[in-house]
Amino acid sequence: MKLVQVALDKDPYPIYIGSGTIKNRSLWQRHLAPGPVLVISNETVAPMYMDSLKRGIGNREVHEAIIPDGEEYKTAVCWKRLIDHLADMGATRDSTVIALGGGVVGDLAGFTAATYMRGIRVIQVPTTLLAQVDSAIGGKTGINLRQGKNLAGAFHQPHAVISDIDTISTLPEREYAAGLAEVLKYGAIRDAGFFHWLDANRDTINSRLTKVLVEMVQRASAHKAAVVAADEKESGERALLNYGHTFGHALETATQYQQFLHGEAVAIGMVLAARLSERIGLCGAGAADALQELLSHWNLPTQIPAGSDAQQLFDLMQLDKKAKHDGLRLILINALGKACIYKDTAASDLLAVLKDQ
Amino acid sequence: MKLVQVALDKDPYPIYIGSGTIKNRSLWQRHLAPGPVLVISNETVAPMYMDSLKRGIGNREVHEAIIPDGEEYKTAVCWKRLIDHLADMGATRDSTVIALGGGVVGDLAGFTAATYMRGIRVIQVPTTLLAQVDSAIGGKTGINLRQGKNLAGAFHQPHAVISDIDTISTLPEREYAAGLAEVLKYGAIRDAGFFHWLDANRDTINSRLTKVLVEMVQRASAHKAAVVAADEKESGERALLNYGHTFGHALETATQYQQFLHGEAVAIGMVLAARLSERIGLCGAGAADALQELLSHWNLPTQIPAGSDAQQLFDLMQLDKKAKHDGLRLILINALGKACIYKDTAASDLLAVLKDQ
Repeated sequence: MKLVQVALDKDPYPIYIGSGTIKNRSLWQRHLAPGPVLVISNETVAPMYMDSLKRGIGNREVHEAIIPDGEEYKTAVCWKRLIDHLADMGATRDSTVIALGGGVVGDLAGFTAATYMRGIRVIQVPTTLLAQVDSAIGGKTGINLRQGKNLAGAFHQPHAVISDIDTISTLPEREYAAGLAEVLKYGAIRDAGFFHWLDANRDTINSRLTKVLVEMVQRASAHKAAVVAADEKESGERALLNYGHTFGHALETATQYQQFLHGEAVAIGMVLAARLSERIGLCGAGAADALQELLSHWNLPTQIPAGSDAQQLFDLMQLDKKAKHDGLRLILINALGKACIYKDTAASDLLAVLKDQ
Repeated sequence: MKLVQVALDKDPYPIYIGSGTIKNRSLWQRHLAPGPVLVISNETVAPMYMDSLKRGIGNREVHEAIIPDGEEYKTAVCWKRLIDHLADMGATRDSTVIALGGGVVGDLAGFTAATYMRGIRVIQVPTTLLAQVDSAIGGKTGINLRQGKNLAGAFHQPHAVISDIDTISTLPEREYAAGLAEVLKYGAIRDAGFFHWLDANRDTINSRLTKVLVEMVQRASAHKAAVVAADEKESGERALLNYGHTFGHALETATQYQQFLHGEAVAIGMVLAARLSERIGLCGAGAADALQELLSHWNLPTQIPAGSDAQQLFDLMQLDKKAKHDGLRLILINALGKACIYKDTAASDLLAVLKDQ
């Protein structure tokens, strides 16, 4: 088992990465609060891992709240139901919420824990690659509104993150690949060495060799942990993690979240951001092609679908919640492994990249 | 105008106390974020102060959300409506929420600001005595569930608190007196000198002499600020502020929140807590009588209503959310001006105090 620390000044916490961590009793004994436990999961994940989790927890008062599987359940209605569940079971400040699932479960369970009695303990048990290397780490929680994703939420750091590599081996191909896009992002924005390691191990990564997965998740988690520790509330460096995301969100919105998984939209977004970086001379030629080639090898999309409306995407990007009051800020790259916040993108350059299919 | 600082390590903030602060343009210029503003108020307060507030804000994009007046609107439904209001007006992280009203508006608006885009700026403009000296300071926000008060919420410190003493002079008698109970609490738990000052000024306080009100609100706010700065998340000293509250909450619940204002229930609770402190020998005789005498002078109730069910109150106190998993903790006093957390109350002593009407 590998350990990564999220070195926050206040309340630092560990990420455990390994095979079988879900049922590792000593981890649970170390991290559960003394009171009752509510495990929040969904209809897909619970049948696969709830029993293992309960064996790990051992002899305690454990309640379960199972939500349907899907982003469309990350709502205020589901949040209220979960808060009521805690209140009805008489949960106190000594209770623990466990988030067993992917990003939706983690965000919803995290927001529930953040807002029950002004914050109780949450332990994240991410069961997708995307959640393990990104959303379960860093305390961002939230729900979607009809006006936009994650518009309501809170920062609420978990007490621990328990990443079980075994859950990755059962992921559908497409979902696994979507997670790889976020893994590659860390290479693109802050670690050229990691980018090359991923490139060199592209095939064992594709075949999900456990040993390689543990190292990959550990290295990616360490990147996320370092960024979060440096900038817990996203006032500076943490914004770099949005590399590819402003493009990606626009694509997801334009396609009503029906066509792309989040990681797939981010894959396209990263290539577009690299193309824009090259176009305006911020980055030398080749980075975008290198990104595109490896993403394609992992069967990820890397281009805006033919027939897309570039102007619509452009307009949607202006509405992105990362667009502050003073205009669009994009995360661009200076080279593979080095990113920056860029505020002066000319509309013509952005449109050209969006049109170039 | 008087100034009290809430000296938090991270994001300290000022409390301004004076006459006419609501329309003081330089305060608003100093504290508003650059984006649009949403003023949240209620149907009673808005007609009285919204215009002054808008004059103070000056030439900006200002939206209003007016909720009905009453604790029964501090709900998830109202919270969701306010979050939607922010989303519909296209609020970004550069927006400001202003809470113009008493405790209900402050809690609801604070929770809205805490959870919109994971936290945007809120400025508290408390218009009741209770809110000025207590609820507007310290960042506790929340909504009620049918299972209990404030069960959902967040800690979210305001960017500034603007207390206008003029709003106090128009408060109904009963509401003003309820605020005095919380003022007196600071004397009881941490400042015998303040207790004696309040006692010496009991009549000018009753007649709401502006000069005395400013000093009273300033001194009470400074107490709240000091406690919050020492213990932002209520892990230690801040719990002392619950003096009288576990009794008070039980009384409020037993009477379905129909009979007592919060401050009135706390007034009774403080006397009961003092009686219990004396009974178990923690505190010398006389403190409870001194508290009771001054509270009565201000026309506050100081006894459990005749015919109350002591056993029911006892049971309700065990359910209080401050009752941690390991049993009831009461705030008791060692003397006027000195409080402690007490964990070993015998059921027989507590019941005796609840029965002694």
